[in-house]
Amino acid sequence: MRTFTAEIVAVGTELLLGQIANTNAQWLSAQLARYGINVFHHSVVGDNLKRVKDTFLLAEKRADVIIVTGGLGPTEDDLTREAFQAVSHLELEEHEPTMEKIRTYFVNQNRRMTPNNKKQARVFKGCKVLDNKAGMAPGMIVEHRGKIWIFLPGVPSEMKYLVNHEVLPYLKKLTGSKNLIKSSVLKFIGIGESHLEHEIADLIKSQTNPTIAPLAQHDGVVIRLTAKAEAGEEASELIEKTKQEILKRVGTYFYGVDQETLEEQIVLELKKQHKSIAAAESLTGGSFTDKLISVEGASAVCPGGIVSYDAKVKQQLLDVPEDIIQNKGTISRECALAMAKGVLQKLNTNIGISFTGVAGPGELEGKPKGTVYIALCTSDGYEQVEQFAFPGNRNRVRQRAVLKGLEIVFKYLKS
Amino acid sequence: MRTFTAEIVAVGTELLLGQIANTNAQWLSAQLARYGINVFHHSVVGDNLKRVKDTFLLAEKRADVIIVTGGLGPTEDDLTREAFQAVSHLELEEHEPTMEKIRTYFVNQNRRMTPNNKKQARVFKGCKVLDNKAGMAPGMIVEHRGKIWIFLPGVPSEMKYLVNHEVLPYLKKLTGSKNLIKSSVLKFIGIGESHLEHEIADLIKSQTNPTIAPLAQHDGVVIRLTAKAEAGEEASELIEKTKQEILKRVGTYFYGVDQETLEEQIVLELKKQHKSIAAAESLTGGSFTDKLISVEGASAVCPGGIVSYDAKVKQQLLDVPEDIIQNKGTISRECALAMAKGVLQKLNTNIGISFTGVAGPGELEGKPKGTVYIALCTSDGYEQVEQFAFPGNRNRVRQRAVLKGLEIVFKYLKS
Repeated sequence: MRTFTAEIVAVGTELLLGQIANTNAQWLSAQLARYGINVFHHSVVGDNLKRVKDTFLLAEKRADVIIVTGGLGPTEDDLTREAFQAVSHLELEEHEPTMEKIRTYFVNQNRRMTPNNKKQARVFKGCKVLDNKAGMAPGMIVEHRGKIWIFLPGVPSEMKYLVNHEVLPYLKKLTGSKNLIKSSVLKFIGIGESHLEHEIADLIKSQTNPTIAPLAQHDGVVIRLTAKAEAGEEASELIEKTKQEILKRVGTYFYGVDQETLEEQIVLELKKQHKSIAAAESLTGGSFTDKLISVEGASAVCPGGIVSYDAKVKQQLLDVPEDIIQNKGTISRECALAMAKGVLQKLNTNIGISFTGVAGPGELEGKPKGTVYIALCTSDGYEQVEQFAFPGNRNRVRQRAVLKGLEIVFKYLKS
Repeated sequence: MRTFTAEIVAVGTELLLGQIANTNAQWLSAQLARYGINVFHHSVVGDNLKRVKDTFLLAEKRADVIIVTGGLGPTEDDLTREAFQAVSHLELEEHEPTMEKIRTYFVNQNRRMTPNNKKQARVFKGCKVLDNKAGMAPGMIVEHRGKIWIFLPGVPSEMKYLVNHEVLPYLKKLTGSKNLIKSSVLKFIGIGESHLEHEIADLIKSQTNPTIAPLAQHDGVVIRLTAKAEAGEEASELIEKTKQEILKRVGTYFYGVDQETLEEQIVLELKKQHKSIAAAESLTGGSFTDKLISVEGASAVCPGGIVSYDAKVKQQLLDVPEDIIQNKGTISRECALAMAKGVLQKLNTNIGISFTGVAGPGELEGKPKGTVYIALCTSDGYEQVEQFAFPGNRNRVRQRAVLKGLEIVFKYLKS
């Protein structure tokens, strides 16, 4: 089996001005590592024809596979095509399907197309065109003078789309993918990093394949398992064995693996239990409901919700009694519970959840910033209200409230 | 005054494995830009002696100032000292204050010092040692063969400490710091990058101070103006003059500068006009309302909203006539308009806006994924409905719908 070396070249002055970090190179490197392709260099160069050319010539000397991100857009400072043409002497031609797509885009958007938009449809003769369903500029794979050049747009979502759908299958074929590194992430909610690490300290120390690395993230704690093996199934088995060992200790807090999200797991569990949910949201402004509806197929379990930011809306749309608002205030256990019951009734769901609190920056009704009440009630009479004091600024408080709401629903469904 | 060019070299295999992003290079670049030092290259190389040497030799050819991050630690794969010694033939010597600091650290921690810890105290003869109060490894500035080498630890907090306390004062002295760079970002919505560029093509070409760089972002297009001047006020004036010139051409699409967001501008404008708004959201699931409520003080202009994902909720909470749902469907102009009117009435606001469409992955009611209707109506009888075909996956379609909604409201308020 041949071992390939790669270099990742990013083109864009915004990187050299420090406006953005080169997260593309990081993400690409992690993907290449999975296929046993050694990345020896990352290079970043600005939108300058001579310097991009020189960087390409150097990369051609140093690597078998050169991945170039950025510089494929429609404007004059998008120079990747020009620089590679100067280096390779390959011809550019118009790619009709892309041209058609650009034309359609402008029609659909009711916008005017200008001549420079055509530039994005120009591809190297004989290259493999990578169909960019996430944006306009197509990617390209060019095999030239014994090297493989992969050109990708710089917008991360477009780059990732093309890599996942076109580049990785191509590289898998190329490398035979026998020297496999496989990693998997276990996700937990409701447990801190140090507690989690404490529970599995002996495993972390004694075990090397897979390695076990806990990591705190903004939405919970994860454990990354990384296994090396000759084949995919072998790596998967190694990971599965360690996963089971870990779940024996901290399985109560586990909710999913890899790309799985807490909201997906909730939608899945609601479907399984034939239950529906609706939220009454004050400070969270609709973002809890939005989290659920972001999941494919959420319509089966979440018919909608009510955002009741103003006290009047709490009364009129959620039937929160005036008495509660006058005597307990809108930032209270009583109001939270009345909101949850109100939304359950109005949307005719099995579960109602509510969020009321002080996002800040200032205090409200005498309650300090960060005070949040979350209530959950069900059509069969169960009810709970919890009070929290979340640190951080306005948006952090709102995010934490949503995350805590997801945690509460998940725990309720699993109990 | 002399102009300096810089290259930032990061040493560390963890970067090439994609375990971390090179945020050091981003942060350093932003600092250097402020002093008028042009960064032409970022390079990342792994912990391999030959490749680090080659990278140093290349950087020496390409730049006046070479900033190296990482590889100064105590372990065997920390190779920055060895590589630079091989390149420069400079001698290393023990730095007694650092040695003393390391000894004290180990005593205080009740830990045994191992021989490799001594490595961190070795510095190049005649260099300027940078005292690292945030960690163990000192930084170094070495002037050699007409070039300036700045060696910094890879840990971001230590690197930043040394840059702020030692490197920036050094660079200020070096450059005279009269060469100030100031940049400002103008933000636009409702115009494509290529159209925008087309309108100001002559300015982009003819003008060098400030430079004018359009850039497409996921939420619109921005123009970055970057001015060089002797003093801050002079730079601000240069930027202001060009800004006015640009706004003469494309001011209709302009909504803010720098950190200002479209939702902030909308909340501001609503307050100014003493108007309120509420949204009826189907596929957007509450995220439009959430955008507005994320802004401080939004309570004055947005009392809440209704998420009506299910057709029944559209009827029951928004009074969409059954006739429309039966004969036109929920994905229709008629339904969108009825939703907007319904939410305006239910929440008693001046403006109602609605979102209904097909987020995907599949089609719905015979309408393809990406079909979205957005309606806006007002309490004084104005109404508009627009139909869109957004590309991309489920979440991209939802995001684009929200962004288009913000654009529609902003345009309405400004018209």
